[in-house]
Amino acid sequence: MKNIMVAQSGGPTAAINASLAGVVREALLCESYDKIYGAVHGISGVLEENFMELNTPARVHEDFIKSLIHTPAMYLGSCRFKMPAPEEDPGIYDRIFGILEKMNIGAFFYIGGNDSMDTVAKLARAAEKKGSPIRFAGVPKTIDNDLVNTDHTPGYGSAAKFIAATMLEVAHDTYIYDLPCVTIVEIMGRDAGWLTAAAALARNEYNITPQLVYLPEVPFHRAQFLEDVRRELKRSKNVVVAVSEGIRDEEGVYISAKEAVADKFGHMQLSGVGKVLENLVKRELGTKVRSIELSILQRCAGHAASAQDLKESCELGEYAVQKTAEGETGFMSVVERVQDQPYIYQIRHSGLQDIANKAKAVPRKWINEAGNDVTEEMIRYIRPLILGEARPEWKDGLPVYLPVAHLNHTGE
Amino acid sequence: MKNIMVAQSGGPTAAINASLAGVVREALLCESYDKIYGAVHGISGVLEENFMELNTPARVHEDFIKSLIHTPAMYLGSCRFKMPAPEEDPGIYDRIFGILEKMNIGAFFYIGGNDSMDTVAKLARAAEKKGSPIRFAGVPKTIDNDLVNTDHTPGYGSAAKFIAATMLEVAHDTYIYDLPCVTIVEIMGRDAGWLTAAAALARNEYNITPQLVYLPEVPFHRAQFLEDVRRELKRSKNVVVAVSEGIRDEEGVYISAKEAVADKFGHMQLSGVGKVLENLVKRELGTKVRSIELSILQRCAGHAASAQDLKESCELGEYAVQKTAEGETGFMSVVERVQDQPYIYQIRHSGLQDIANKAKAVPRKWINEAGNDVTEEMIRYIRPLILGEARPEWKDGLPVYLPVAHLNHTGE
Repeated sequence: MKNIMVAQSGGPTAAINASLAGVVREALLCESYDKIYGAVHGISGVLEENFMELNTPARVHEDFIKSLIHTPAMYLGSCRFKMPAPEEDPGIYDRIFGILEKMNIGAFFYIGGNDSMDTVAKLARAAEKKGSPIRFAGVPKTIDNDLVNTDHTPGYGSAAKFIAATMLEVAHDTYIYDLPCVTIVEIMGRDAGWLTAAAALARNEYNITPQLVYLPEVPFHRAQFLEDVRRELKRSKNVVVAVSEGIRDEEGVYISAKEAVADKFGHMQLSGVGKVLENLVKRELGTKVRSIELSILQRCAGHAASAQDLKESCELGEYAVQKTAEGETGFMSVVERVQDQPYIYQIRHSGLQDIANKAKAVPRKWINEAGNDVTEEMIRYIRPLILGEARPEWKDGLPVYLPVAHLNHTGE
Repeated sequence: MKNIMVAQSGGPTAAINASLAGVVREALLCESYDKIYGAVHGISGVLEENFMELNTPARVHEDFIKSLIHTPAMYLGSCRFKMPAPEEDPGIYDRIFGILEKMNIGAFFYIGGNDSMDTVAKLARAAEKKGSPIRFAGVPKTIDNDLVNTDHTPGYGSAAKFIAATMLEVAHDTYIYDLPCVTIVEIMGRDAGWLTAAAALARNEYNITPQLVYLPEVPFHRAQFLEDVRRELKRSKNVVVAVSEGIRDEEGVYISAKEAVADKFGHMQLSGVGKVLENLVKRELGTKVRSIELSILQRCAGHAASAQDLKESCELGEYAVQKTAEGETGFMSVVERVQDQPYIYQIRHSGLQDIANKAKAVPRKWINEAGNDVTEEMIRYIRPLILGEARPEWKDGLPVYLPVAHLNHTGE
């Protein structure tokens, strides 16, 4: 019987360990596979032969699996290693296949974003060329939600839920004073506005904020922005703006980069776009204004994860194991949406050809004509992904997570 | 039978509405009082006669009270109005008493921080001078935890819980890469380090971060800070620093203010202390470094509030009503700690003399000798305050809060 290997890569999400849990859970049930190895720090860990066994008695325990599902970021650690093309460096492929063969690996699972899926595609092609029977499967994840071929990506729902809940709480924080005030919230998303769009879900029967939402898919005009804020201040004392870190002007220049500031040593430093717009409003409108950057909290807030997101993430891992056992290789497990309300979806798999080179932007029709808000369709798309509260266990007032594996390498 | 009036003031917390709920709940039970008026926007609302009835059928409903307990920021709105001394402006006192008498008010409750307690003290003294039977009581709140005469302040426990949970999640986010990285987290607290100290609660069996904790109570030395970071980088690849926004150098100059930067228009802008230290580490140590500002999220995250905090906040409101009914005036309800573990406390009341002018700093003995960490005693003090998860109701993936009253002024 063959063994399997699994690894994680890219930036953290609150759901990436749920996919790992799915792989482990299914591999334990699957009669085709014996041992489950985790490579510590992604493909770099494979090359360094930095492995841990995941089916030790302690780690197959249902308590462990449950804690794993709720633990944010990568249990197995990550890496930022761009796999060279086989033509460029055939040696690296020989080394990887040598190691995998030595460990009697039948299937390799890589949980990650674009680059990781690219690695899976390259390894699958190399296997074909070499005539190796090892199967390679990708399990997607990225809070950015910009992978093609899947309705959405694991991790996005949890980030969107954190963003929407936080925007609602920020709204409560802004409503308390009877004075005009502009609050600018900077949200992740260098190239795609999916995360920023989630801010609009904070609106409800009483909360009209954020009144303005700017995504990187539409060029940003400073004059129009000031005009938008001025108009909204006439309608309401509390104006909240949600803005993607990646908004650009008509020439494609990042708004954040344009306002590089010099510190007292003369070193230039980049100001976040939130700070840039804060200064702009202060200077031009003279209103009370503040900016908030949600920063990495939006990707690591395991305590506020979406139950739907963790469920799907787990299923995508399970499905990948099933498919390799059936003989598939060179694919990524994906989510296919059947309908929005009530939400129905199916887990499927797709090829990897386009994944690495294409990024899925927010469709223009899901952004309003003025380019300062999202449409109802966009909200309908996101809503099912934030449903349900995935509650970790709490102890002594704090969530209980699993220690990152390499911190506790020998721990059983 | 007399009526009561209640108002809220100062900055938001996740617990200030729990105190309002306590006042309302107890006033409904109390045979001494009839109608419950809320003044919208604090004492300014009294002067503007901007009132709402809180014992309408909808608002005495237990569902309303429960939602109120979990709703962050001020249901009644806030104000930043500094009450002049009676000698300075006797007219304002005449107006306030005239309005309160007209509305047949027997007791006035002000939920707020230092300034609000100062207002309560002034009004109680004015009542004594005037021979007015109206009683004045304060219910404390501030995430800063810097009020004297009380073991701690409502709102602090919830903010501390959010900070500790977030620091743990940030730790998971930092541990994933096998590369040296410094993460600096800027936490609120201009003059007192209570909130920043809560970051240390994130440490557990596997998590040693934050390794460094800097509070405003101890002068900050840049050279020593760099030395601390350099040393910790030798011990661990992931160094996390928790720092109060209010740290100052030996001359009392804010570290944040010192690094004012000029934008391209030559306007000076203040950089937060996190950004300042990020630049310092980048320049001097050349390590990968990032900074995160928890910003207002730490005070408005109702979804992650401490159950213990909300419980006590509610009890402090109830107790204030009981005491005025017994004839007390010119006091603040307070928490007295009986023991740490298991945590035992009592609700009491204290005079208001020192409240306005004194701020409670973290005792020097709760900070280590080097001034770069807190002691076990500090952690023992905070731990009971973050216990229990106060869960709001959730609907469609988001917490259910009450609309701020003035948004829905006539709503029943």
